[in-house]
Amino acid sequence: MLRIVILGTGNVATHLYTALKKSDTIEIVQVYSRTPKSLLPFKNEVATTSSLTGLVEADLYIIAVSDDAIASIAHNLPFNDRLVVHTSGSVPMINIHKRNRRGVLYPLQTFTKKKAVDFSSIPICLEFGHKKDFVILEQVVRALGSPLYKITSDQRKRVHLAAVFVNNFSNHLYRIGHEICDTSGVEFEILKPLIQETAAKIETVTPYMAQTGPAKRGDEKTIERHIDLLENDMHKNIYSLLTTSIKNTYGK
Amino acid sequence: MLRIVILGTGNVATHLYTALKKSDTIEIVQVYSRTPKSLLPFKNEVATTSSLTGLVEADLYIIAVSDDAIASIAHNLPFNDRLVVHTSGSVPMINIHKRNRRGVLYPLQTFTKKKAVDFSSIPICLEFGHKKDFVILEQVVRALGSPLYKITSDQRKRVHLAAVFVNNFSNHLYRIGHEICDTSGVEFEILKPLIQETAAKIETVTPYMAQTGPAKRGDEKTIERHIDLLENDMHKNIYSLLTTSIKNTYGK
Repeated sequence: MLRIVILGTGNVATHLYTALKKSDTIEIVQVYSRTPKSLLPFKNEVATTSSLTGLVEADLYIIAVSDDAIASIAHNLPFNDRLVVHTSGSVPMINIHKRNRRGVLYPLQTFTKKKAVDFSSIPICLEFGHKKDFVILEQVVRALGSPLYKITSDQRKRVHLAAVFVNNFSNHLYRIGHEICDTSGVEFEILKPLIQETAAKIETVTPYMAQTGPAKRGDEKTIERHIDLLENDMHKNIYSLLTTSIKNTYGK
Repeated sequence: MLRIVILGTGNVATHLYTALKKSDTIEIVQVYSRTPKSLLPFKNEVATTSSLTGLVEADLYIIAVSDDAIASIAHNLPFNDRLVVHTSGSVPMINIHKRNRRGVLYPLQTFTKKKAVDFSSIPICLEFGHKKDFVILEQVVRALGSPLYKITSDQRKRVHLAAVFVNNFSNHLYRIGHEICDTSGVEFEILKPLIQETAAKIETVTPYMAQTGPAKRGDEKTIERHIDLLENDMHKNIYSLLTTSIKNTYGK
């Protein structure tokens, strides 16, 4: 049994805890949070501590806290030469103090606290300072049933940046779609099948091939009509910029 | 049996043909295309014509051709007072010549010629000049099994504009994600689950509530790092503009 301590009680920490608890090759021996109140949901199931000096011995410490808090927790761990990883997309591995063996276990997904997640479809990006630690981290990924990617800190921060485009920015475009529907007196419901199909398409076709629309066709009449129709200046700017970018991509 | 003629042999025409052919309340009596060659796939199954004067009598004529060609075909139809609809998101209903009863049957979805479509999840937007024609158009929508929306020409062109944001523009963001992965030596595969989950989320949560990321948090340090990291100036501009728009939305 691999003994794991989870540090953190947020979205990622909670989802990892829930998924790993079910594994018969892994034992979660403790959950840490500096605020005792956030440990309450865990208290009946597992040992908890709100003090770093109270941490028990384990094979792996997973720091799943906000990016800003990682370095400070890692710095204050009261032990040496143990395997300590964080779960962030953008924090370099070396932000974990070198007194310990360090690594990263980054699940590339958007987590919502109340929504169950299926780790079997979540890519896990692994990074590690010592080759021998790969075996331990691989065991965790296998327990989660996730696809495994070995990537460097530099690759990870670029993948995280790509994730901002496909996740945060796409969602904001959905928001703009919702606003346009609202001001037109049409239910947002009407756009949902299109949103699902747009995402589904790239499972079988590259986004480059899947592109359609007035910008791709270089259909200036429709583009002009659309920009006129938009009432919000920011929406006009976004429409123009993305249209130019699509036109550049397809040489229009 | 409702007798229908389909004018056009492109994506929308072909998908409508395939779906309606299966219905036992509808008979497709003819397919028209001005280019005889594009009628070849239909020849063994249904009567075809490449001349508007060769059109047979029917209860409904569906013009499913490119936006620019609709008015000219409608203008040259050699009959009066029959029900003629087009399938475009952005062409006004009145572009169909008023010699005939006119309407619109706009399926709000992105079609790929080779990919089968499930009309039961595709919203159909209906518009009609004569109230009595609703019964006929409703019968078509029921045969397709699609959700039905009655909307005006003005609403339709706004919904079509919203569709550009959630479909064309989101797909372009996927393309940018793909490019960033490529230049980082990471497979685009790694982003696919995130893309699916981002789309899936808005089935249960509004896009406003679903928003996450550095712009939403007002996390200037990460935003600056990301813009530095981007090598393509257009990508920098898109990142900055969408970040500003998200910040405005959440008062950051």
